[in-house]
Amino acid sequence: MPPWLLPFFSSLIFSQSITSSFAKFPPWYFPSSMIRPETPSSPDKNELYKTKYFTQILDHFNYNPQSYQTFQQRYLINDTFWGGPKTKAPIFVYTGNEGNIEWFAQNTGFMFDIAPEFKALLVFIEHRYYGKSIPYGGDRKKAYKNSKRLGFLSSTQALADYATLIIDLKNNLTAMDSAVIVFGGSYGGMLAAWFRLKYPHVAIGALSSSSPILQFENITSQYTFNNIITQDFRSESENCYKVIKGLWREIEDTAGSPGGLELLRKSFHICKNYISGSYLEGWLSSALVYVSMTDYPTPSNFIAPLPAYPIKQMCKAIDDPTLGNDTFAKMYQAANIYYNYTGDVKCFDLDDDSDPHDLGGWQWQACTEMVMPISGNKEESIFPASTYSYTDHVKYCEAAYEIQPRPTWITTEFGGHDITRVLKRFGSNIIFFNGLRDPWSGGGVLNNISKSIIAIVAEKGAHHVDLRFSTDKDPDWLRDVRKREIGIMKDWISEYYHMHSS
Amino acid sequence: MPPWLLPFFSSLIFSQSITSSFAKFPPWYFPSSMIRPETPSSPDKNELYKTKYFTQILDHFNYNPQSYQTFQQRYLINDTFWGGPKTKAPIFVYTGNEGNIEWFAQNTGFMFDIAPEFKALLVFIEHRYYGKSIPYGGDRKKAYKNSKRLGFLSSTQALADYATLIIDLKNNLTAMDSAVIVFGGSYGGMLAAWFRLKYPHVAIGALSSSSPILQFENITSQYTFNNIITQDFRSESENCYKVIKGLWREIEDTAGSPGGLELLRKSFHICKNYISGSYLEGWLSSALVYVSMTDYPTPSNFIAPLPAYPIKQMCKAIDDPTLGNDTFAKMYQAANIYYNYTGDVKCFDLDDDSDPHDLGGWQWQACTEMVMPISGNKEESIFPASTYSYTDHVKYCEAAYEIQPRPTWITTEFGGHDITRVLKRFGSNIIFFNGLRDPWSGGGVLNNISKSIIAIVAEKGAHHVDLRFSTDKDPDWLRDVRKREIGIMKDWISEYYHMHSS
Repeated sequence: MPPWLLPFFSSLIFSQSITSSFAKFPPWYFPSSMIRPETPSSPDKNELYKTKYFTQILDHFNYNPQSYQTFQQRYLINDTFWGGPKTKAPIFVYTGNEGNIEWFAQNTGFMFDIAPEFKALLVFIEHRYYGKSIPYGGDRKKAYKNSKRLGFLSSTQALADYATLIIDLKNNLTAMDSAVIVFGGSYGGMLAAWFRLKYPHVAIGALSSSSPILQFENITSQYTFNNIITQDFRSESENCYKVIKGLWREIEDTAGSPGGLELLRKSFHICKNYISGSYLEGWLSSALVYVSMTDYPTPSNFIAPLPAYPIKQMCKAIDDPTLGNDTFAKMYQAANIYYNYTGDVKCFDLDDDSDPHDLGGWQWQACTEMVMPISGNKEESIFPASTYSYTDHVKYCEAAYEIQPRPTWITTEFGGHDITRVLKRFGSNIIFFNGLRDPWSGGGVLNNISKSIIAIVAEKGAHHVDLRFSTDKDPDWLRDVRKREIGIMKDWISEYYHMHSS
Repeated sequence: MPPWLLPFFSSLIFSQSITSSFAKFPPWYFPSSMIRPETPSSPDKNELYKTKYFTQILDHFNYNPQSYQTFQQRYLINDTFWGGPKTKAPIFVYTGNEGNIEWFAQNTGFMFDIAPEFKALLVFIEHRYYGKSIPYGGDRKKAYKNSKRLGFLSSTQALADYATLIIDLKNNLTAMDSAVIVFGGSYGGMLAAWFRLKYPHVAIGALSSSSPILQFENITSQYTFNNIITQDFRSESENCYKVIKGLWREIEDTAGSPGGLELLRKSFHICKNYISGSYLEGWLSSALVYVSMTDYPTPSNFIAPLPAYPIKQMCKAIDDPTLGNDTFAKMYQAANIYYNYTGDVKCFDLDDDSDPHDLGGWQWQACTEMVMPISGNKEESIFPASTYSYTDHVKYCEAAYEIQPRPTWITTEFGGHDITRVLKRFGSNIIFFNGLRDPWSGGGVLNNISKSIIAIVAEKGAHHVDLRFSTDKDPDWLRDVRKREIGIMKDWISEYYHMHSS
């Protein structure tokens, strides 16, 4: 698929918000090669976990012969800290999201950090159709060939995979009585919350971090996502916001003038293979989206190597008085914070559609059930004004897969409308963490629903910041968040072990 | 399929418990033609409801092209009593079980009886693959042709059907805020309870009547079902129990003697087309199972036309001193209570495998997910001693459909193990009704789980007796049960409408 046909919406983590703002141009795409995965900042990867495989059923919900096919599902396990089945030591399970599970495990240091205190067994389960958990003999090309084969990639199948694997694992460990808590961030956090709601007999609780379970249909406004990005930059400096807001028009005007594209290429150090105004706009705006998601208080290396508080750094570049009124020079400096913090990049390749974290399946999910309207922009937005177009979404999906989305399925299956009333006296033991710097927080659960369905909100937090490895430099608010999470989970576990088994 | 290959296990309502007790004989089958459906005892069927159809999706959980196929799902609706969307009037939905929905609607008089008091809209949804809700163009032969086509007959698909239909119906009635309560008896009761647990955003509560949700794996003993039948007869008279207990050996001995089959034919008025000792045993024992299930305090016409307290009537025949020691004559009289209460039958056809209520799909369900071990008999059983054989179960399914059951799926998807601990602080608003005369009550929830997951147990009650049309002759305990159910449901509704919509 040529890159310009690539997603309106890439993965949740690499989603973007600006498609429609550039609806007059070819659709924006995410240049994922700009993400350079590196080893985690903390322990050696080889010490973090062992890799195992589970023979998983292809289709849990039907019984035609095809449904009985199996595939090898990867999971990572660490029993270093586990107290074992005879103690009251829990099992912590990460419900994998749309990518290679190793990447998520390496970026969910919180589970490793707290495992000793809980004497917890750690398990990270890979989501079907991602990483090495590929049906059709593990052959990604085969599995992704067409909608007939991709058809079994769905959130409900993934949840049933997790239930099946966890029950089997507990049986094998003779640990049927051990309490399981599920963890997840982003789409993985949605899965964790839904897993607790749908499989309370398998997990006693869920830590659902930065999970926009309310970003479906019209539950959350389509403008909220970009409003938060706007607010993030505006909170650093009004000038920073204004410069960026004016940028798009300037790029378009320049791109349309004789010699303009060459000027843009030089200004932004774009490689010679390809340039267009709209690709450049997409490339720049994705930087804004991702730094908003990863505006962490310490240096990070999740989506890209980044300094602490990258929005502040970007605005510092933009507000730099030595660059005068040269918007392109300012924005080039800002873009370097996100795309070239290590300083290694010679030129930026706008035509690169590689996918180092294997996130490609999200396009399929967005074309089937994960229809999340987020790309609207009102006049005050940092992006050009626009509205989300479901029609465009459908057009893309028909062209790419010859199928139509089912935009109401997620709320049919998992709810979302009027969630406080629905869950006030139903369900228990879920923590919804959200950081308000994170554009996804707009679709998250931001208020306590009941005594045990709790919202923890960090005003200065970004996308699942709570799940990162802790460092000496973490701010107090982040330590407090984690302390609260630990305390609540301890209560779940002690309540579980105090209830009599019937 | 020849009748002797017919189910080890017919539908839940027409299930039977004695397969293994006759494992040395060809498998027992249920002569369902002996059920003669008649119009309901109460209002005229034409006044009860209007028939409608909904275009339902074939496969909710996958996205391959086949999953997008649709079928016409039948539902029955009665808006005579409804207060409408602008009042706080609820919607009562019956979650259809394994058969023609009209039959269930006509036998769920409770919903009609209480609708005026609640100003409720009544909806009865037919289960996919039953009645007229048949995929593949409504062509039963096509849909039941092989496991490839039958594959979409599953409980999870049925629940998703109900959620989809209810949400669509509420939208069409602009009644999104109306409270929905789901009702169901037997397998329909299991679906109602599971629906509340899985779709709390669609139904605010469930009346789950006589639903053996714990009759899976080893949660409930395989002996319990037949123990209850044994106890039912024994409670009428020890002699009655002893005569029946001795019957099986006498039939076998007679069948094996020269001229014995003719003697049995004459004794039991069996038609000339077919007789065998084991078929006769199956036929008689099914009468014991069904009268135990329908040992109602007033005359009934659900499975068959029956007098009030049919077990008492059977034992009266068996204990009749005028018949001396003639066990066959006694048992013939007893069988007449169940199979020929109206006195119309000239001879009993053991080879009849017709299916007037269209329950055949249950065989498929029992061969895929509904693996319910119930047929064990200890020495004191009214049936010959035996143990449930999963191996035989698998053999049958392989022969019939070329598939293997998934015996742990129901507990993986819906739980069941340790249910009190799991649901004590999770979920709400479920009434589990059970009558202890009902052999299925052994697999039911018989103790309160929490303040709002309530068990109502009627010592003298039979299979979903609470859901029948009320009559002037209902005993006080039955009136009390219904009064309690009404009171609890009123609390759910008032709580729902008092909670603020978020």
